[in-house]
Amino acid sequence: MNKPTMKDVARLSGVSTATVSRVLNKSGAVREEMKRRVAAAMEELGYKPNGVARSLRKNQTKTIGVIIPDISNPYFMKASKGIEDILYPKGYHLIFCSSDENPRKEQNLLTLLSEKRVDAIVVATAGGNEDFIRYLHSSGIPIMLIDRKIEGGGLDLIAEDNFQGAYRLTKKVLDQGHRRIGIVNGLLGVSTGKDRKAGFEKAIGEYGIDQDPQLVFDGSFTEESGRRAAARFMQLADRPTAIVCLNNLMASGVLLQLNQQGVDIRDIVVASYGSIEMAPLVAPHDSLITVKQYPYDMGNRAAQILLARLQKEGEEPREEILETGLD
Amino acid sequence: MNKPTMKDVARLSGVSTATVSRVLNKSGAVREEMKRRVAAAMEELGYKPNGVARSLRKNQTKTIGVIIPDISNPYFMKASKGIEDILYPKGYHLIFCSSDENPRKEQNLLTLLSEKRVDAIVVATAGGNEDFIRYLHSSGIPIMLIDRKIEGGGLDLIAEDNFQGAYRLTKKVLDQGHRRIGIVNGLLGVSTGKDRKAGFEKAIGEYGIDQDPQLVFDGSFTEESGRRAAARFMQLADRPTAIVCLNNLMASGVLLQLNQQGVDIRDIVVASYGSIEMAPLVAPHDSLITVKQYPYDMGNRAAQILLARLQKEGEEPREEILETGLD
Repeated sequence: MNKPTMKDVARLSGVSTATVSRVLNKSGAVREEMKRRVAAAMEELGYKPNGVARSLRKNQTKTIGVIIPDISNPYFMKASKGIEDILYPKGYHLIFCSSDENPRKEQNLLTLLSEKRVDAIVVATAGGNEDFIRYLHSSGIPIMLIDRKIEGGGLDLIAEDNFQGAYRLTKKVLDQGHRRIGIVNGLLGVSTGKDRKAGFEKAIGEYGIDQDPQLVFDGSFTEESGRRAAARFMQLADRPTAIVCLNNLMASGVLLQLNQQGVDIRDIVVASYGSIEMAPLVAPHDSLITVKQYPYDMGNRAAQILLARLQKEGEEPREEILETGLD
Repeated sequence: MNKPTMKDVARLSGVSTATVSRVLNKSGAVREEMKRRVAAAMEELGYKPNGVARSLRKNQTKTIGVIIPDISNPYFMKASKGIEDILYPKGYHLIFCSSDENPRKEQNLLTLLSEKRVDAIVVATAGGNEDFIRYLHSSGIPIMLIDRKIEGGGLDLIAEDNFQGAYRLTKKVLDQGHRRIGIVNGLLGVSTGKDRKAGFEKAIGEYGIDQDPQLVFDGSFTEESGRRAAARFMQLADRPTAIVCLNNLMASGVLLQLNQQGVDIRDIVVASYGSIEMAPLVAPHDSLITVKQYPYDMGNRAAQILLARLQKEGEEPREEILETGLD
């Protein structure tokens, strides 16, 4: 009685669900033999990827799934609230899940939400699930990307111009005369981490700076990363005079660590991609530079794009990239 | 084929689901005639409140629903992360929903989660749903209360000793010599708001203070409430020398508003029930007093109690009340 799933196809053909997904989407390299096995399994099971779509559309559940990578980051919580404040008055209930920046967990959550028959999914992806996301989307559950892009596009998206934001942030630090600049990167497997890093590098390149590897810390978008980066930088004989942090939590971690080590915040410039909670009270204005983000507004806009998608299925994907300014 | 639901009973008997719930739980005043109509409808439909329980137990979905009142309050997000970090390694997926402190929305979410067949629900209740929560619990979906109690108990609970916490916080302010103290209350329809208010009142009562009504602001646990309270207090000819804020967000709002109005934070004491983000950088130690909270640990503990509940159904409800200290 139960409809065969992609998992069943994978099991019968003896390949991973990722491979099944690649075959279905004709994406990535898959050996011909694999393709044949997957096709045979689909036929044997009577698996129809697009069959799911129609049945879902008819039975609207009026629930939307939202997957975010970090449930304790105020940025994502404000974006979530922005989504909910538009969709709730339209009769939708939202269910939120946290991937903890873990691609495997994200894949499980995408599966779970599709099994719970949500009408659509909004995801700020932890990376690594490009094919699976496209597969679900093409099988009839509209998926909208927020904050983070995936290679190849093809889905509704709202994100910031992370490259420009980080470029401008770094340029402001450089314009203030700093040349020894610590950089705290985020996760480099997701677009925000990658694009911000590239923006930083373009700016220092324009000033002819050859970045000292001791001043590079690859973090994971957490406060703890920021703390560790600051501790490491402060151990150097030749300390940085400014630290560029490529998200809000890492900047908070840097500030807290500097404070704990007795460094006067006025003696060093901290540049943050993203707002710091309580910023006006945290540091004097000229020693804290931030890229202003509008996560609540971004959430609102994401919800509007999603509503349009739910009304008109066939349309081309819409991509909106938001400009960011400095505070 | 579909099993009759409480809604069906309500429809057939022409009463609200709340009334059906009251009849089932023998709680609250319900007219005899109503009781008869509900009983007749249940019989006609073959409705069995406890039948749901067994069928759910056999079909574990390994998902747990968590309903919190404010998705943008770091306190609840840390508690949520504390729950998830215990339950995820045990193979459970969590889905979070936000009630926005809205009892009606909370009731919808409770219904939604039970329809999505979660194995259990953790709720920090927005109030007003005592009967419905007990009904769902008795119909076989274990419900655990976190942070906020409901009248009458009967469910697993983990919460802080809010009365003692607020009492100690206020006493410390009084011991510093303050007598003109502004109070920013939270929502008074939930236990945290009520109990903290009572703790404050006990402390000032012991000092023989007759609270000036101009120094009382009833807020809603939001930063915006704190901002409005501070603005109001600062307009008084006879300003308070200390402000007690009965949650973290309201304290943040007070601090931000004072800062915006050019008040030097060192000239006034702000006492906060709950930690302020970035506190070490926000205000000098002696002008910011906080009740230390451990939401992450509370979430961990809640998850452990819930796991025990899922293994042994019949046991008596467990209530754990956590002591809080001052920072």
